[in-house]
Amino acid sequence: MESAELKNQRLKEVFQRKIQEFRTVCYVLTGYQIDITTENQYRLTSVYAEHMDDSLLFKASGGVVGSGGSMQLMETDFSRTLREMVDLHLHHQKSIPAFLSAVTLDLFSRQTTV
Amino acid sequence: MESAELKNQRLKEVFQRKIQEFRTVCYVLTGYQIDITTENQYRLTSVYAEHMDDSLLFKASGGVVGSGGSMQLMETDFSRTLREMVDLHLHHQKSIPAFLSAVTLDLFSRQTTV
Repeated sequence: MESAELKNQRLKEVFQRKIQEFRTVCYVLTGYQIDITTENQYRLTSVYAEHMDDSLLFKASGGVVGSGGSMQLMETDFSRTLREMVDLHLHHQKSIPAFLSAVTLDLFSRQTTV
Repeated sequence: MESAELKNQRLKEVFQRKIQEFRTVCYVLTGYQIDITTENQYRLTSVYAEHMDDSLLFKASGGVVGSGGSMQLMETDFSRTLREMVDLHLHHQKSIPAFLSAVTLDLFSRQTTV
């Protein structure tokens, strides 16, 4: 009994480490920290954000992400400052990756030109 | 005993789902599928890749990612085609997120102008 619970505990630790590794790699490479806030809702914070609470909120709707569901950008104070990029990349090009890439390059250029 | 093992099994399933959710969200939002190939080595494949095996390989060196370790782009057939972006964003600006963002926008624009 005790050994099964120990195994259980070790398993939890292994998985926590694995998830943490994945989040960190995602952050270091793509520049976005992804937090799962509530079910089907994800908060992205850029490594180049100018203010700590500048974050983007996406909500998955119409089913599980990746199997027919779609993602929608929710309005936040920060997203309202990105009107042009929202229009071009989300509304016109319909590409979240292109949008987030443009935001990264924009924030990066602001940081390095100050 | 059986109940502890059942619990164990359920735990495994919950964590596998959680990791899978995280990978999928990362892919849908940032446009990069991240695979952990071997220890400290990560393969990124863009949703806009022109060929299935166009991938970027990063290796973490000098310790655990996120705690002082650094990431390095390894040479692949695909990375050799991105010389200018490697020079500008990795060597000059020293920003992996800016590099990956530029690659995303470049691949996206190639896809939509064909």
